[in-house]
Amino acid sequence: MQGRKYSMLIAGCAASPNDTINAQQSTLNNRFPLQDVLEAQQFDRKLLNSIFEVAREMEDIERDAAGSELLKGFLMATLFYEPSTRTRLSFESAMKRLGGEVLTTENAREFSSAAKGETLEDTIRTVEGYSDIIVLRHFESGAAKKAANTANIPIINAGDGPGQHPTQALLDMYTIKREIGHLDNIRVGLVGDLANGRTVRSLAYLLAKYDGVKIYFVAPDVVKMKDDIKDHLTDSGVDWEESTDLMEVASKCDVIYQTRIQRERFGDRIDLYNAARGKYIVDTKVMNVLPKHAVVLHPLPRLDEITVEVDSDPRAAYFRQAKNGLHIRMALLKLLLLGY
Amino acid sequence: MQGRKYSMLIAGCAASPNDTINAQQSTLNNRFPLQDVLEAQQFDRKLLNSIFEVAREMEDIERDAAGSELLKGFLMATLFYEPSTRTRLSFESAMKRLGGEVLTTENAREFSSAAKGETLEDTIRTVEGYSDIIVLRHFESGAAKKAANTANIPIINAGDGPGQHPTQALLDMYTIKREIGHLDNIRVGLVGDLANGRTVRSLAYLLAKYDGVKIYFVAPDVVKMKDDIKDHLTDSGVDWEESTDLMEVASKCDVIYQTRIQRERFGDRIDLYNAARGKYIVDTKVMNVLPKHAVVLHPLPRLDEITVEVDSDPRAAYFRQAKNGLHIRMALLKLLLLGY
Amino acid sequence: MQGRKYSMLIAGCAASPNDTINAQQSTLNNRFPLQDVLEAQQFDRKLLNSIFEVAREMEDIERDAAGSELLKGFLMATLFYEPSTRTRLSFESAMKRLGGEVLTTENAREFSSAAKGETLEDTIRTVEGYSDIIVLRHFESGAAKKAANTANIPIINAGDGPGQHPTQALLDMYTIKREIGHLDNIRVGLVGDLANGRTVRSLAYLLAKYDGVKIYFVAPDVVKMKDDIKDHLTDSGVDWEESTDLMEVASKCDVIYQTRIQRERFGDRIDLYNAARGKYIVDTKVMNVLPKHAVVLHPLPRLDEITVEVDSDPRAAYFRQAKNGLHIRMALLKLLLLGY
Repeated sequence: MQGRKYSMLIAGCAASPNDTINAQQSTLNNRFPLQDVLEAQQFDRKLLNSIFEVAREMEDIERDAAGSELLKGFLMATLFYEPSTRTRLSFESAMKRLGGEVLTTENAREFSSAAKGETLEDTIRTVEGYSDIIVLRHFESGAAKKAANTANIPIINAGDGPGQHPTQALLDMYTIKREIGHLDNIRVGLVGDLANGRTVRSLAYLLAKYDGVKIYFVAPDVVKMKDDIKDHLTDSGVDWEESTDLMEVASKCDVIYQTRIQRERFGDRIDLYNAARGKYIVDTKVMNVLPKHAVVLHPLPRLDEITVEVDSDPRAAYFRQAKNGLHIRMALLKLLLLGY
Repeated sequence: MQGRKYSMLIAGCAASPNDTINAQQSTLNNRFPLQDVLEAQQFDRKLLNSIFEVAREMEDIERDAAGSELLKGFLMATLFYEPSTRTRLSFESAMKRLGGEVLTTENAREFSSAAKGETLEDTIRTVEGYSDIIVLRHFESGAAKKAANTANIPIINAGDGPGQHPTQALLDMYTIKREIGHLDNIRVGLVGDLANGRTVRSLAYLLAKYDGVKIYFVAPDVVKMKDDIKDHLTDSGVDWEESTDLMEVASKCDVIYQTRIQRERFGDRIDLYNAARGKYIVDTKVMNVLPKHAVVLHPLPRLDEITVEVDSDPRAAYFRQAKNGLHIRMALLKLLLLGY
Repeated sequence: MQGRKYSMLIAGCAASPNDTINAQQSTLNNRFPLQDVLEAQQFDRKLLNSIFEVAREMEDIERDAAGSELLKGFLMATLFYEPSTRTRLSFESAMKRLGGEVLTTENAREFSSAAKGETLEDTIRTVEGYSDIIVLRHFESGAAKKAANTANIPIINAGDGPGQHPTQALLDMYTIKREIGHLDNIRVGLVGDLANGRTVRSLAYLLAKYDGVKIYFVAPDVVKMKDDIKDHLTDSGVDWEESTDLMEVASKCDVIYQTRIQRERFGDRIDLYNAARGKYIVDTKVMNVLPKHAVVLHPLPRLDEITVEVDSDPRAAYFRQAKNGLHIRMALLKLLLLGY
């Protein structure tokens, strides 16, 4: 939900009128339709496109040494019930690059009133009194929706357990658009832990909105892509296949999206973990067959599923991808707080 | 104590002269008399009133989308030796809503030099070199006074163990004033853990400064209000009585102040805890007998001592109370740092 | 390395031209030569002097109630893999006193992707996308150099395990300069844990760059100064001697630099620790023989190796020393980010 500053902005009292007057006029009839960012399912092609356009503008703003004051006077609370330094710093950098301020809780689970038995709803009702937008990371699937149902200010889901991590999905799509130039008619290889990785699941879901997409799944047997996503792709008319030959897939793709095999999913079965972990590595051999225009992505952190030799290849786009996360988050903060 | 910026402000060099010139002129002869906020005993009716007036002004400042620069250039250190996310975020939001900046230490006990054996006094002497005001949360009663005796900058006690939590007491009184309209001639029911709850103790102490106050104590036997407060009320001419009938008390009160039974006080006696916890619940039945003009308060976090059905009742004022904490803390930061 | 804002600044587009135009003109041909601050060995007399001059200017800026905007628009990331509240708050205060902003990670070791096996290099590549300068505290010697080899933005080493802590060394030297007035021809007594204390090792190393320096080592047998530093002093023509008589040394010195005996170095040998700890205490007896113009320094935290009675002696300079750390860090942030 949008809260206290909404009506003032609508009434023409923007935080920084000089910076934004053009954007304001050109979009008067085109207000950002979302009140919260909760799940990948909220986004259609049109909405993705408008977010990507704003993200592109954010690149210039972020590079401006003088800094922006677009979100001056706004306060973002990062309410993290489980740690995720990368995601947290990315959001906090985004807010500060736009001139906004931040309240941080890095380990709300252990330290907050939650330990005394307070419900998430009560915590949200308190924190919304202290801030203008809440970025929530939680260990329970559905926590972000629960928070959004309670809050009178916008909620951004920064990952809710095994559930959704929509800003990662957006930055992945944005990176493909930035690197390849288009999202229709692309061939994407999804590699690694496809069973547990929520990023590849969301990515497959969003890719299904585009035309002429071909998806290859390359995963060890124990962590194969689940049927629900496969069925969704089929229903959406997306061509997909499973492969055990990373070299062949790499030679045909525009994008190789590699992921980490998550040890924490294997419990005591270190043997299974080790077998799965070593199976599909992106190394110089893979790069040698990858088309010149193609790119390698990875949501990070990376262990050895992409070798460090690959880093210097211009097609290694994963650190640019991390940086794109900053611009996507700047765009979402601006869109949710200013409404355009 | 007030420090380096004090003399400059006295000399007329306010941080943001435009914002404050009227306030400055009208209070030239009425400088805020406190150098630190340490305990409820520091406040008399006149002082409470002047703080409440500033807190009311803070509501407008906080709602202003453009943000305030009243405390621009000032730096607050939140030095928390035990976690209290709610209190910390409230203070940090207060400072940032006024344009000030914040240095945060969420778990000073575990991580700071304290673990190596440094005294609190040495830590304060160091941190006062890096900041303009220190908000201290400590696990030992008397820590805030010790800090204030050492520091050359203002100290705000944000709770010192079993000792004091004066800003909670102020926000409770302010909430009654805001909700009921006056503090004289009110009837207040204090419910729940009256033995261990420092908030109800401080509240009773401050209520004793007003005329025609009647206090009802409604507590399970194991956590009854202690004699020292009862004696103080009697000495102050305050009418009080103990009751075991929450319904009857609720039907006669202007304010029901419910509190959480603190499990941590019961050790292994889970049976005693469970008995105490279930005894006095504010639910729709209680709300049905509560006068129309009355309100329910709670310092939060709340477990099930107020049922969630009550939340939608306009007399459920506990989230407004949490928000009032922001305004009280904004007021105290302004008064201590600017002196008016 | 210096990054994105560098070229713009070179081109004359300073963040805050008004504040800095004089400094800019006077140093156009005298750009700060360092891209990172990694170790004491980077500094020669000329460089130390230029840093100390800027640190002195920072005292005025820090005292200015209006605050500085010299580093407005710049974002510093404090990436701390082990906690050090004092050092972190000092850096964060420095950045904020100059109008810059901060991203904080207090316990990167436990909470960041490092726990999942990410290399420091990968973390740096991500964080440099979110910030303009990284202050790194790490538990491994050499971590800062590794980070600097990877990063395209400046790195400041805020302590890397048993390795270096160069900003402490700079603030120690600066404090001697500020207190005594000169660095040539001084007599310095280094007292306490000389074997494990990286501060005394760095200090001895930097003192060797000056003329006419005499160093006294006063340490319990188990923690004596190691031969590498003694040899370096001898090679540099510095006169040094070991002594077991703190009173005699104190009577002849300009500076007594006391240090804490680090219990964590003794493991189970509490008996050795206790013997070492009690051996050389700076108390009022020592102060009685210390020359009037001399000062006592300590890197803090202090246990009982300096008694609290000494604190009120004007020659007790250790809290002024801590404050000097703020000015040194302000100077380094300005020099690394603006280049002058």
